[in-house]
Amino acid sequence: MKSWIDSANSPDCPFPIQNLPYGVFSRGGDAPRCGTAIGDQVLDLAALEQAGVIDAGAPVFAEPALNAFMALGNGAWNAIRERLTALLAEDGDGALRDDTALQAKALAPIGEVTLHMPFSVSEYTDFYAGRQHAFNVGTMFRGPENALPPNWLHIPIGYNGRASTVIVSGTDIRRPLGQLKPPEADAPVFGPCKRLDIELEMGAVVGVPNRMGEPVTVSQADEMIFGYVLLNDWSARDIQAWEYQPLGPFQSKAFATSISPWVVTKAALEPFRTSTPEREKDLLPYLREPGPMLYDIELEVRMQPEGAGQATTICRTNYNTMYYSSAQQLAHHAIGGCRMNTGDLLGSGTISGAEKHQFGSLLELSWGGKEPLTLDSGETRSFIEDGDTLTLAGWAQGDGYRIGFGECVGTILPATAEKDW
Amino acid sequence: MKSWIDSANSPDCPFPIQNLPYGVFSRGGDAPRCGTAIGDQVLDLAALEQAGVIDAGAPVFAEPALNAFMALGNGAWNAIRERLTALLAEDGDGALRDDTALQAKALAPIGEVTLHMPFSVSEYTDFYAGRQHAFNVGTMFRGPENALPPNWLHIPIGYNGRASTVIVSGTDIRRPLGQLKPPEADAPVFGPCKRLDIELEMGAVVGVPNRMGEPVTVSQADEMIFGYVLLNDWSARDIQAWEYQPLGPFQSKAFATSISPWVVTKAALEPFRTSTPEREKDLLPYLREPGPMLYDIELEVRMQPEGAGQATTICRTNYNTMYYSSAQQLAHHAIGGCRMNTGDLLGSGTISGAEKHQFGSLLELSWGGKEPLTLDSGETRSFIEDGDTLTLAGWAQGDGYRIGFGECVGTILPATAEKDW
Repeated sequence: MKSWIDSANSPDCPFPIQNLPYGVFSRGGDAPRCGTAIGDQVLDLAALEQAGVIDAGAPVFAEPALNAFMALGNGAWNAIRERLTALLAEDGDGALRDDTALQAKALAPIGEVTLHMPFSVSEYTDFYAGRQHAFNVGTMFRGPENALPPNWLHIPIGYNGRASTVIVSGTDIRRPLGQLKPPEADAPVFGPCKRLDIELEMGAVVGVPNRMGEPVTVSQADEMIFGYVLLNDWSARDIQAWEYQPLGPFQSKAFATSISPWVVTKAALEPFRTSTPEREKDLLPYLREPGPMLYDIELEVRMQPEGAGQATTICRTNYNTMYYSSAQQLAHHAIGGCRMNTGDLLGSGTISGAEKHQFGSLLELSWGGKEPLTLDSGETRSFIEDGDTLTLAGWAQGDGYRIGFGECVGTILPATAEKDW
Repeated sequence: MKSWIDSANSPDCPFPIQNLPYGVFSRGGDAPRCGTAIGDQVLDLAALEQAGVIDAGAPVFAEPALNAFMALGNGAWNAIRERLTALLAEDGDGALRDDTALQAKALAPIGEVTLHMPFSVSEYTDFYAGRQHAFNVGTMFRGPENALPPNWLHIPIGYNGRASTVIVSGTDIRRPLGQLKPPEADAPVFGPCKRLDIELEMGAVVGVPNRMGEPVTVSQADEMIFGYVLLNDWSARDIQAWEYQPLGPFQSKAFATSISPWVVTKAALEPFRTSTPEREKDLLPYLREPGPMLYDIELEVRMQPEGAGQATTICRTNYNTMYYSSAQQLAHHAIGGCRMNTGDLLGSGTISGAEKHQFGSLLELSWGGKEPLTLDSGETRSFIEDGDTLTLAGWAQGDGYRIGFGECVGTILPATAEKDW
């Protein structure tokens, strides 16, 4: 299917008419509002809503977050997607195509708008569902025999992260301070993290809540998910190593989590559904999937030192390698009666393929710092240095089109000097 | 100091004029609004605000949550407290005392109102700051030599909990379902938790936020705290034992956390400040306290089976036994740059004294279920059974008055039958 917006029809455009991801943008001094991306344009959904050209049943788009729309559920999501598809299709409804005044009001080049956090994050949970990642990290920490914790093949292991520091792509990140304990030292020291890392993840965005005390099935969980984003779970490995026993990662993960600005909908990803790998151990019935719940999404990570002319691709992998899907994770999250809310964000866990160039963190890529990477600029890196920019990118490759996630970008600023606080 | 509201002057009244805790209540069909407790009455702060008798600088009390008031900071908190004290003191300002029409509008017996969640919980973090509790639990899990994790004397260990299931006292709790793995079994089974427990804690409520990337000192952290509540961190011990390695407690803590309905302010607790115990190891400078940051608060836990005529007090202890204060915990929470928001809730960790009757969880009181408790009704308990009601109570004992926290109550309902979901 083609759009009358030409830029959407190029085979490598991330935002063809088959995508229609949702985000929040502003231009000039206007208040942030909801939009969709089509080709190289942002389409202002608040303007369309106000013009009476789209209708979600209640006004939801003149908001600085997608939450009101996300709470409406699959019926409204599908209706709006159908309507937008008709409005943007070459041979579709002419209400926008033939109305240049409305176009002037509702369309703007993506390059001319500011993209904001697409939704208000209620709570953020991070999982650990990559088989290869869990094996790699476990091997480094506990040796290959004890690499995989005994519960790992039974539970989609996760922990609660910090929602207050989930930030949109393009926001700079200050290197965290914290307690570090060199292996040979008797006591910890205080200072800036020296082993700053990324984790390449997908984030699932919860649209529809459940009730406290009421578990949901994997199918229901899948219905509750609004869409997916790229997610970088920035990690301070030295702080993590010292703090994480016995209650899990805390300050090592609390300083920042970046997400891409466009939420790609479940509907856009439907053609790319794929099954989780064969189970090594039977799952308990509440975790069994009634159908394919993962997606075939190509992912890559690029690293660019300050002043380097170009970025180096340091990882290429695919979301289809995960052992647990987001729907399974969400079902597990609610199994004890935990209420899940509109705006909850679930990190998939680090996505690492089987080969070294497919590893989704520097900890794995440099094997704990022992095998530094050489970048195209000639510089080497074990972990992230001040001024480095890290970019995640992702897309699902269709037949003649791609469903792009855009990018998730962050640059590291030096730690706050101790005298400044 | 005495109040013209006589019931506030009894030496065992939890809500004398020295207390003035804040909460949210409704009566009849009225919308929930902010109030304070005085003697056996609730004073409607929205009504006083509307009458122009109190003024926080902006209208903040005709709200279903204290958050707007909490965000104003110490200046406004102190001004409102002074004004309320003047309005309620025997020999104070007569604006309420002499206005029976305003009294009729603004005062209601506590027994005739519904108490709601006092604030909207932004995020919930639970700590592990009781030396005796950490030692007890560590001994059960790892033996007495390895009881205390190596980081425990350096870091106020904490993990992110789940804000969506923080509930107000009086809300029933459904027994959680989850994965349980009996020690002798090869694989986990699915079912209702069999080792359901409480954790006796205090909760610190954050009023003033910090900025992302900007650490705060312990003094600043103390200034950011609005007040304290009783907190019951309900825990599913069997689910916890199987899930908690390597990333910490998750579903075992996510089903419910109860808090008392009145937030007792820092100002009311000021006379009861006390220092944390002597350090066994020097703390890093960012965690050192410039003055006493704990409080002398008597605590007890009562347990009452369904149909039993009376509750049995199963624990008496004191908040002053904690190794880390909430101000230290908050400073640690922000040290890496984590943004803390108005409405963040920090659980102190289980408060266990040195003696067995001072232990703040059934896990410790029954020593892992090996030494069941005998209740006054003659029934025995290792963990909580369906229909049991658990009550936390707390107060700071002044000279001739007490600063009461009221109670934090919860009754356990049977787990959802599997056929029902």
